Amino acid sequence: MAKNLKIIPLGGIDEIGKNCTAIEYGKNIIIIDMGLTFPDEEMLGIDIVIPDISYLEENKEKVKALFVTHGHEDHIGAIPYYIEGLNIPVYGTELTIGLIESKLKEHNINGTNLNIITPRQKIKIDCFIVEPIQVSHSIQGSVAFAIDTPVGKILHTGDFKVDFTPVDGQVMDLAGFAKLGEEGVLLMLADSTNVERPGYTQSESTVSGNLEEIFHEAEGRIIVSTFSSNIHRLQQIIDHSEFFGRKVCFAGRSMLRISEVAANINQLKLNPNIMIDISQINNYANNKLTIITTGSQGENMSGLVRMASGNHSHVSIVPGDTVVLSASPIPGNEKLVYRLINQLFKKGADVKYGSLEDIHTSGHACQEELKLMHSLIKPKFFIPVHGEYRHLKLHGQLAEKLGMDKENIVIPELGRRYILTEDSIKQGNMVPNGAVLVDGLGIGDVGEVVLRDRKHLSQDGLIIVVLTISKSEGILLAGPDIISRGFVYMKESEELIDQMREVVQSVVDNASLKEMMQWQDMKAKIRKDLKKFLYGKTRRKPMILPIFMEI
Amino acid sequence: MAKNLKIIPLGGIDEIGKNCTAIEYGKNIIIIDMGLTFPDEEMLGIDIVIPDISYLEENKEKVKALFVTHGHEDHIGAIPYYIEGLNIPVYGTELTIGLIESKLKEHNINGTNLNIITPRQKIKIDCFIVEPIQVSHSIQGSVAFAIDTPVGKILHTGDFKVDFTPVDGQVMDLAGFAKLGEEGVLLMLADSTNVERPGYTQSESTVSGNLEEIFHEAEGRIIVSTFSSNIHRLQQIIDHSEFFGRKVCFAGRSMLRISEVAANINQLKLNPNIMIDISQINNYANNKLTIITTGSQGENMSGLVRMASGNHSHVSIVPGDTVVLSASPIPGNEKLVYRLINQLFKKGADVKYGSLEDIHTSGHACQEELKLMHSLIKPKFFIPVHGEYRHLKLHGQLAEKLGMDKENIVIPELGRRYILTEDSIKQGNMVPNGAVLVDGLGIGDVGEVVLRDRKHLSQDGLIIVVLTISKSEGILLAGPDIISRGFVYMKESEELIDQMREVVQSVVDNASLKEMMQWQDMKAKIRKDLKKFLYGKTRRKPMILPIFMEI
Repeated sequence: MAKNLKIIPLGGIDEIGKNCTAIEYGKNIIIIDMGLTFPDEEMLGIDIVIPDISYLEENKEKVKALFVTHGHEDHIGAIPYYIEGLNIPVYGTELTIGLIESKLKEHNINGTNLNIITPRQKIKIDCFIVEPIQVSHSIQGSVAFAIDTPVGKILHTGDFKVDFTPVDGQVMDLAGFAKLGEEGVLLMLADSTNVERPGYTQSESTVSGNLEEIFHEAEGRIIVSTFSSNIHRLQQIIDHSEFFGRKVCFAGRSMLRISEVAANINQLKLNPNIMIDISQINNYANNKLTIITTGSQGENMSGLVRMASGNHSHVSIVPGDTVVLSASPIPGNEKLVYRLINQLFKKGADVKYGSLEDIHTSGHACQEELKLMHSLIKPKFFIPVHGEYRHLKLHGQLAEKLGMDKENIVIPELGRRYILTEDSIKQGNMVPNGAVLVDGLGIGDVGEVVLRDRKHLSQDGLIIVVLTISKSEGILLAGPDIISRGFVYMKESEELIDQMREVVQSVVDNASLKEMMQWQDMKAKIRKDLKKFLYGKTRRKPMILPIFMEI
Repeated sequence: MAKNLKIIPLGGIDEIGKNCTAIEYGKNIIIIDMGLTFPDEEMLGIDIVIPDISYLEENKEKVKALFVTHGHEDHIGAIPYYIEGLNIPVYGTELTIGLIESKLKEHNINGTNLNIITPRQKIKIDCFIVEPIQVSHSIQGSVAFAIDTPVGKILHTGDFKVDFTPVDGQVMDLAGFAKLGEEGVLLMLADSTNVERPGYTQSESTVSGNLEEIFHEAEGRIIVSTFSSNIHRLQQIIDHSEFFGRKVCFAGRSMLRISEVAANINQLKLNPNIMIDISQINNYANNKLTIITTGSQGENMSGLVRMASGNHSHVSIVPGDTVVLSASPIPGNEKLVYRLINQLFKKGADVKYGSLEDIHTSGHACQEELKLMHSLIKPKFFIPVHGEYRHLKLHGQLAEKLGMDKENIVIPELGRRYILTEDSIKQGNMVPNGAVLVDGLGIGDVGEVVLRDRKHLSQDGLIIVVLTISKSEGILLAGPDIISRGFVYMKESEELIDQMREVVQSVVDNASLKEMMQWQDMKAKIRKDLKKFLYGKTRRKPMILPIFMEI
């Protein structure tokens, strides 16, 4: 059998988030990224979702290292849940490792082997030589990984955009990608998030001018909400504040945590003369203050949401405040974000939001940037990643339009092993894959049955029927009692409750002695009769739980 | 006291939907619109939401008529719930009345006094003279209402846009609005839905060319999903189908119902030579077929969703199908819509969607159209309606920029009576207002307590603890039994269940005889101890229901 490499996508396929890809050759596996995602509306009560990496756990002895493209949650968020079990070294650039370190600390995880790498530094892990190549993205220290393998070079772009005028002047390593393309790339895996958008993303620098205008006009406090990991955005806000003579403070847990990590490694420059603690804001005039906070997605309990609802211990929104939402709503968050904006307007703030203000720009490559990457790399094979199915499909079509053979483009399935040789890519078998749900301390203990019950309970609530029965005589000793929650307001529905009791009583009255002593059938009959009665009466289908106590 | 008129907004304020406005003078009230809205994500299990019109019900003898601007659900949807109680005549244009009639029939409501009116026809209702004025919107027969009252003329625009090239050639009655403005309008209430968007909405006709291109290129079936009430859109799709030699069928309950209503009054022209029933589609080649269906919002059980998931009895999506989503996602529906699009792509369809294809246009005026309306009408007083708070606020700012006095602009509150005289507008008292939740057959019986319970149950599920106790002796006869739903998968959590039982048993063991006989305190203690135990163990907070049975 010819030498072959396996590419195994374990996350970021048919979804935005929980990115994770395994690359396997013989007895060696390396992992690229290990992120989380947020539950969709059907995953009631779930906190976060991480990839199923059973395949890696089952092949633990093969797994040699984790390479992380950048420090966003959808690339690092699952690390605390798996790193102790895998016990492998982690490689990332300085900010990425700083953020992972801070995350592990929050989870009380010590002793992880964390390694800071720099772009163009080559790291040899058994048969792989991994080279990070600098890209632009909405967080510093983002890299793609070029991986030299026994079958050829592969490139995983990670998340990227092409920003010719980044805030720190460090333009992405186009020469590095060009060189790689010249040398020949066997397979490229590339970010598909923005493939639906024509043209180019705007440079992060374009945000600066629009922010400046807002600073120029604001007469009271300026309260800016953005993604805490967008350090360049934070820097721009801080720099404008300094120019306009404003003190700056941070609010919100993740804002405080991430700005500290970035400042410690000098990637965020905080002039001690202008930085203040939020407890000090009353010492300064409103037009001398900037507050940078979390909440741009309208998240419950975030800084800005608490300020808007009057639940923040230091800041309440008042007329004269200028509130800037320097972020776009992530799909699915629109209602929360607009609720926040409405609340801010009601408190009298001047709210700057939306695409018209041009105070945000995406971190992902649009169509023309993707074309640039494809044209530089000219890979033999291509797997689009990081996207829902339509993104992957459209990215495949884009590659085709650029001249690639259709047969050389693979729209991947989650958990499928793709077998790559020097001149072919083929589907292999499936490995375990999917979503592991984290609910409180439970990892993976909430499955379909529990979620189906939560859904049922959430729609029409619950009816409990309790009866106590004599085991020896088969007669009813107490009940039937009816208890309901989430169905109707019980105090106002006594008549309905009485009728339910009658329905149950009539099942009991009609039961034979044998049925009373072996009451599985009676349970089913109570459920059936009550269900029919309630649907006729209310057109609702609450969960019905008959409970028999035996004495 | 000077003559005064009261304007009472009962819906459509701080929200998109359930539009309803009452206008009161002395002993006379007329109502404009009576719509529904859809539940937000917190209203678990709720089907629809209608306005609280207690004020109108309490003043039933004053209420004289309902005027309806157009036939969309957010303007007519609450009528079946209230019209029998109010027992008043309803006025609307032909399509509007046709749709109301069909809706009332679905609810088995007969005998409502329905009146078809035509634009510029004046209807006298006691002290009011109401004149419908034709506007453009995404449904035919849309009108504004100019109302002559004893204090002066008021104008309620209803929903509108300005379409100079409507599909039926019937341009909105700009002359009518201009004349009204010349005569002098005391108060205008105007649609604010699209006030965030600069410029103009596109004409419905612009959609035609883009649809034509899709028809030109499609090689298999064309399946178009759009709002069933957008009769002009349906007509365009039918006309293109005819031109390209395709038969047309409708799918989806509301599509069938509304197209029938519109065809009956000849507002939708159905050539019997091309219309077929969906059961006949297998008699025609794929490239000779157009299917028009519901589901453009990704709604569960809608036509297109069932076709995409293989659950439609006549149509399954196959490679070669061209699927057109001729509608934008309503905010909050994005995830459902994108899930549908992904599914369609997976089935191999070519999917046309999104703003890039220009296959949809909004029915609401953008900023420049709003400015046109304000400039024609030049009202003395202005109340922005039909919008969330930010829309109302921004619409007020737009009017100010056009030269209105700030004091003459009122950002309304729901349920507030605004008192209008010839030279002033003032806040009056509040009347009952808000959302009435419809769940199955229940109207308003699901309130805060029930919703809070549903929310609680949906997040962490439920633990039931049952004990049977001897009333006379105060001793435990059976239990404690633990039943849970939606918390953990019980079969895999026997240990945890055992531990819970121990926690409860220990409460029982430590209880005095008195406590056992009056067990309210024991219930509280069981709840407290179990809650603490479970939170420590799982970081979850299920609902805990202790149930005591007495014998």
